[in-house]
Amino acid sequence: MHVRAFIEEMEQLAPPALAEEFDTGKIGLIVDGRTEVVRVCCALDATQSVVHQAIAASADMLVVHHTPLWTPLTSLTGRIADLMRAVLSADMNLYVMHTNFDRAEGGVNDALAELLSLTGIEPLSLGCIGTCTLSPAEISRRLGGNIRIWGEMKACTRLALAAGSGFDPALLHEAQSKGADAFLSAELKHSVARSSPIPCIEASHYSLEAPAMQRLATRMGWQYIDDPPVLQIIP
Amino acid sequence: MHVRAFIEEMEQLAPPALAEEFDTGKIGLIVDGRTEVVRVCCALDATQSVVHQAIAASADMLVVHHTPLWTPLTSLTGRIADLMRAVLSADMNLYVMHTNFDRAEGGVNDALAELLSLTGIEPLSLGCIGTCTLSPAEISRRLGGNIRIWGEMKACTRLALAAGSGFDPALLHEAQSKGADAFLSAELKHSVARSSPIPCIEASHYSLEAPAMQRLATRMGWQYIDDPPVLQIIP
Amino acid sequence: MHVRAFIEEMEQLAPPALAEEFDTGKIGLIVDGRTEVVRVCCALDATQSVVHQAIAASADMLVVHHTPLWTPLTSLTGRIADLMRAVLSADMNLYVMHTNFDRAEGGVNDALAELLSLTGIEPLSLGCIGTCTLSPAEISRRLGGNIRIWGEMKACTRLALAAGSGFDPALLHEAQSKGADAFLSAELKHSVARSSPIPCIEASHYSLEAPAMQRLATRMGWQYIDDPPVLQIIP
Amino acid sequence: MHVRAFIEEMEQLAPPALAEEFDTGKIGLIVDGRTEVVRVCCALDATQSVVHQAIAASADMLVVHHTPLWTPLTSLTGRIADLMRAVLSADMNLYVMHTNFDRAEGGVNDALAELLSLTGIEPLSLGCIGTCTLSPAEISRRLGGNIRIWGEMKACTRLALAAGSGFDPALLHEAQSKGADAFLSAELKHSVARSSPIPCIEASHYSLEAPAMQRLATRMGWQYIDDPPVLQIIP
Amino acid sequence: MHVRAFIEEMEQLAPPALAEEFDTGKIGLIVDGRTEVVRVCCALDATQSVVHQAIAASADMLVVHHTPLWTPLTSLTGRIADLMRAVLSADMNLYVMHTNFDRAEGGVNDALAELLSLTGIEPLSLGCIGTCTLSPAEISRRLGGNIRIWGEMKACTRLALAAGSGFDPALLHEAQSKGADAFLSAELKHSVARSSPIPCIEASHYSLEAPAMQRLATRMGWQYIDDPPVLQIIP
Amino acid sequence: MHVRAFIEEMEQLAPPALAEEFDTGKIGLIVDGRTEVVRVCCALDATQSVVHQAIAASADMLVVHHTPLWTPLTSLTGRIADLMRAVLSADMNLYVMHTNFDRAEGGVNDALAELLSLTGIEPLSLGCIGTCTLSPAEISRRLGGNIRIWGEMKACTRLALAAGSGFDPALLHEAQSKGADAFLSAELKHSVARSSPIPCIEASHYSLEAPAMQRLATRMGWQYIDDPPVLQIIP
Repeated sequence: MHVRAFIEEMEQLAPPALAEEFDTGKIGLIVDGRTEVVRVCCALDATQSVVHQAIAASADMLVVHHTPLWTPLTSLTGRIADLMRAVLSADMNLYVMHTNFDRAEGGVNDALAELLSLTGIEPLSLGCIGTCTLSPAEISRRLGGNIRIWGEMKACTRLALAAGSGFDPALLHEAQSKGADAFLSAELKHSVARSSPIPCIEASHYSLEAPAMQRLATRMGWQYIDDPPVLQIIP
Repeated sequence: MHVRAFIEEMEQLAPPALAEEFDTGKIGLIVDGRTEVVRVCCALDATQSVVHQAIAASADMLVVHHTPLWTPLTSLTGRIADLMRAVLSADMNLYVMHTNFDRAEGGVNDALAELLSLTGIEPLSLGCIGTCTLSPAEISRRLGGNIRIWGEMKACTRLALAAGSGFDPALLHEAQSKGADAFLSAELKHSVARSSPIPCIEASHYSLEAPAMQRLATRMGWQYIDDPPVLQIIP
Repeated sequence: MHVRAFIEEMEQLAPPALAEEFDTGKIGLIVDGRTEVVRVCCALDATQSVVHQAIAASADMLVVHHTPLWTPLTSLTGRIADLMRAVLSADMNLYVMHTNFDRAEGGVNDALAELLSLTGIEPLSLGCIGTCTLSPAEISRRLGGNIRIWGEMKACTRLALAAGSGFDPALLHEAQSKGADAFLSAELKHSVARSSPIPCIEASHYSLEAPAMQRLATRMGWQYIDDPPVLQIIP
Repeated sequence: MHVRAFIEEMEQLAPPALAEEFDTGKIGLIVDGRTEVVRVCCALDATQSVVHQAIAASADMLVVHHTPLWTPLTSLTGRIADLMRAVLSADMNLYVMHTNFDRAEGGVNDALAELLSLTGIEPLSLGCIGTCTLSPAEISRRLGGNIRIWGEMKACTRLALAAGSGFDPALLHEAQSKGADAFLSAELKHSVARSSPIPCIEASHYSLEAPAMQRLATRMGWQYIDDPPVLQIIP
Repeated sequence: MHVRAFIEEMEQLAPPALAEEFDTGKIGLIVDGRTEVVRVCCALDATQSVVHQAIAASADMLVVHHTPLWTPLTSLTGRIADLMRAVLSADMNLYVMHTNFDRAEGGVNDALAELLSLTGIEPLSLGCIGTCTLSPAEISRRLGGNIRIWGEMKACTRLALAAGSGFDPALLHEAQSKGADAFLSAELKHSVARSSPIPCIEASHYSLEAPAMQRLATRMGWQYIDDPPVLQIIP
Repeated sequence: MHVRAFIEEMEQLAPPALAEEFDTGKIGLIVDGRTEVVRVCCALDATQSVVHQAIAASADMLVVHHTPLWTPLTSLTGRIADLMRAVLSADMNLYVMHTNFDRAEGGVNDALAELLSLTGIEPLSLGCIGTCTLSPAEISRRLGGNIRIWGEMKACTRLALAAGSGFDPALLHEAQSKGADAFLSAELKHSVARSSPIPCIEASHYSLEAPAMQRLATRMGWQYIDDPPVLQIIP
């Protein structure tokens, strides 16, 4: 498939127009390589390890959620030079779907809602709210990592969720006003936890977003490369 | 003691000039009450619970680290109205020491370094670095909560730390260049963890900062009010 | 009446959407008190005297034109602490209608036009213009204070007016182009007077706006509290 | 005298470095005419009347306090075109001393203090404070126009003053903290009057600043042109 | 003709709404003179020479493309004072048509396209593209000055052009994507030339824009004043 | 030589502190390659041709005046991807000296002054002024390209110059006030030429700056790569 055809397919899957303004210039084909795309790999982040596995797999294209070129560059040195040297030398394309994929149908938030078997789903400004019958232990098991519950959570019937870093005071109030008993996301700040009107369930950023990339790979017949952060909890 | 004398004492302890610019207008005597100060309470946050305990203890003054009036207000409604109604009706003073106390001698970072028995301490732009002989399990025990280690940490001889939310890429590089084997702070973001040059030890914001307020209370003969966030880890 | 019902009534009277952008967050229920509203007081400014009279009258609600929380606050000290202590301790609600009431039908400018018996009224960007048959002496009498006429005013048939601080060069030119012989407002600056294309009639801010609050009180069955600035003219 | 020599003399009298930043580019020789300066006129404002009187007096130079080119221009039309046509056609120079003359020794504020026979003078950020033994009626007489006293003024021993538009909340508090019993200036806003910690004495802008220009003319042997605003007070 | 009628005619010719935002306040009647307009002169720039020739021709109105009051003024000194003294003393009107005339039908770009006998014209964001059968030597001859061709130009069938300073990277790419073989404009920067996807033909600003003013003069029965920059090429 | 040692040498030659603020992050080692530096090439611009010649010459380091990463990047596509692919794949270092080299002793402006045999040199804010005894024809010959003289130039004894794009109105006035008879630079705008107080001599950007890189190469024993823009003048 020509890379132009591949891009068109991706833009139907995750329309660029759905992206937040801060993603302008940071999504789509951010590094261009060879024009013929046959073998595709997919991961959450374009880490050194992911890039080398993709090259080793002779990938023509690597699709990721987080761009490695987030901060605008006027130089290529250190880690980012190494990464770009590997990608450019291999003539591998690099494609990013970020907030456009968060919001896309079948995208990051939908995948998370599905993973947690949510029903009766309503959208929020970011993420969604749905009925969840899973116990906290089962949520933790499905996410593949522990979760932390901040505040006193009694029964949770309606669960709000936003994959990634979604603990925003305005969003928490919106979720509460729509009947949420708790809010699931990542990267909770102390001040936000202190003023949250509902309990916050904090998981890792990776555990909330990686499932969407894995499902995308399965659906598209791509190779998924898993590369969770190395994490140890003590005690 | 007259409230003016109390303020002078506090300003010697944590000079306002040490504060970050974003703290302008948000530290010092932020709510004024009666002019005679005898009984003083102290806590990390001015939560509803802390304020009511201080009033119940007939405090003339409540000293906290985090102002409840962070976002500039043009109205007093909901939770903040309830909080201010309680403070103002009781004629209790409210005093805030924030980044000025972080940086003060004997302040938040010094208290944390002491709690972890650091030696050979050198300052960083924010926080410090020192030799730490404690095991991760012992660090966790002294902080009174679990810790999460991101990245592969071998032996850690030199530990960098910044109480509060200190995982900043520039600071992590500064710590590495000064020989740190790991960095202890709170509120680690996924993208920062991914690009950190050294392992990150993530504790809770409360566990890193509350010890300083407790030590301050002991040293000054005040009543310390502990109010940790309600937290449950699953599994 | 529940406070929510009261607010709805107010928002029909002076729709928030009519307000200038600089009033965002500064109008509506700016201090919340008890939820049941029976007794209502009304004044131009929430001065100490007005607040104490309202509390003495057991008001559940005080409606004013000028918010006492104009400058965004990160502390409550001095006069504003005293004022908020009184309001919050009494559990009295405080409601503000500002530029939305200026522009509302039957609002501040309409009340002023009516007080001066204007006919054949046309709107300006701010305020209005109409035929006025009153002598300057009669205008002064109705406003309850002296007026100052800057520039040479011959007969004035068509009078432009803007309650409050409305002497803006662009507005003065608009008024002239619509046939105004003079412009009535408050707080005239020297430089504006010097370049005005028509004579300026300067009254006090209070005398131009208070009549609207008084009329509103009468119409709604509320208690009006008059508190004009103390003023002495010499010689 | 060559115009360059005249400018040097003026810059010693009112050094440009004393001016507020907002005066940048708006003081000094703002319209240049013939290079030989013999006859000089002086006034507060460069009104049409003042400019024509100066031209009729064959002035080579007109010195004023308020620039007629305050708002930056990209066109010359209407009143300002008429004014500039008169000045340029007559080849008359136009020189402005504004906030640099306010602050200069012997400048606007000093002239006002002298006019009111102040003694024991201390500087403020803007204006000054001194002992004043004059009655309000005598102040009014010397200023040549009525004054308005806002707030309850008892005896006034120490009077603060700032020529022009000086009623600023921060300045009022500074004056109070330095012992002022009242503050004299022009263009008082309702909101400032309402929150002033001391009584405000409001005079006209012209009456406070014109005396300095008159004294300057006398001292330098120039012709002073008086052009007070036309004002009528009713009743 | 009354000056108002003249302005209306001009606004039909070059509607102000077509102008770029940076022209706000800088087009139209920028200096007003006598109200009766009979004799009109026209030039590209309002230089001293042009202004004096227009006055010598007893012009009531001078129409130019480039305003002499581009930088907002708070003083009138030096060259600009001399220029304005001449214009204002002669009571001559000065009218500017800038980017509105660039974009107008029959305006600057249309005149240039016509001069170069372009056919099959399509618009660009700025300027246009058309088929050009002229040799470079003939283009140079018609423009009345030499041209410089940057990059390797083979046959040029489709020529893009933008009168004035139009070598913008985005515009060059737009032209290329629409089939342009070369781009004609003025004031080419080294960095833009280096990255241009098509050859750049650089002429002088004057040679590209003056023809439009000359044609306008002919069409309206005005007197055209030519004043090209003095230019010498070596060797 | 280790790349760190090479950088130190370069920073003595052209200290980064001399650079304009807009060069922040855009000078120094902007692409890092192998750590051992033996063979060095040098050119004005990092064009595709220059980069490929440097790689063909097995250069470890390419030193240029103009960074190819001027516009901050969040993607690597098209021409810039090709360029970076070549540089990174070859493991070649890329080093930029820009405005720091303009101002350095023996830098771009000094090299130009030397090329034109200037004597009695005085610095300007940018560039310098000196006595020049060359005829225009000789200046053109030494620069290796034609020059254009705007304005009437009689004898030129004192010549001001600024390599690159230095025709700035303020700089032109500074040069005149210091006695310059003409100003030599590149990229002259029509509006600047029109208001220049002295004649402007316009050369190409390349011809003014490339000599400095050539001299630097000679002095350091590097290989200089010449790549002037392709330019044809008609007629």
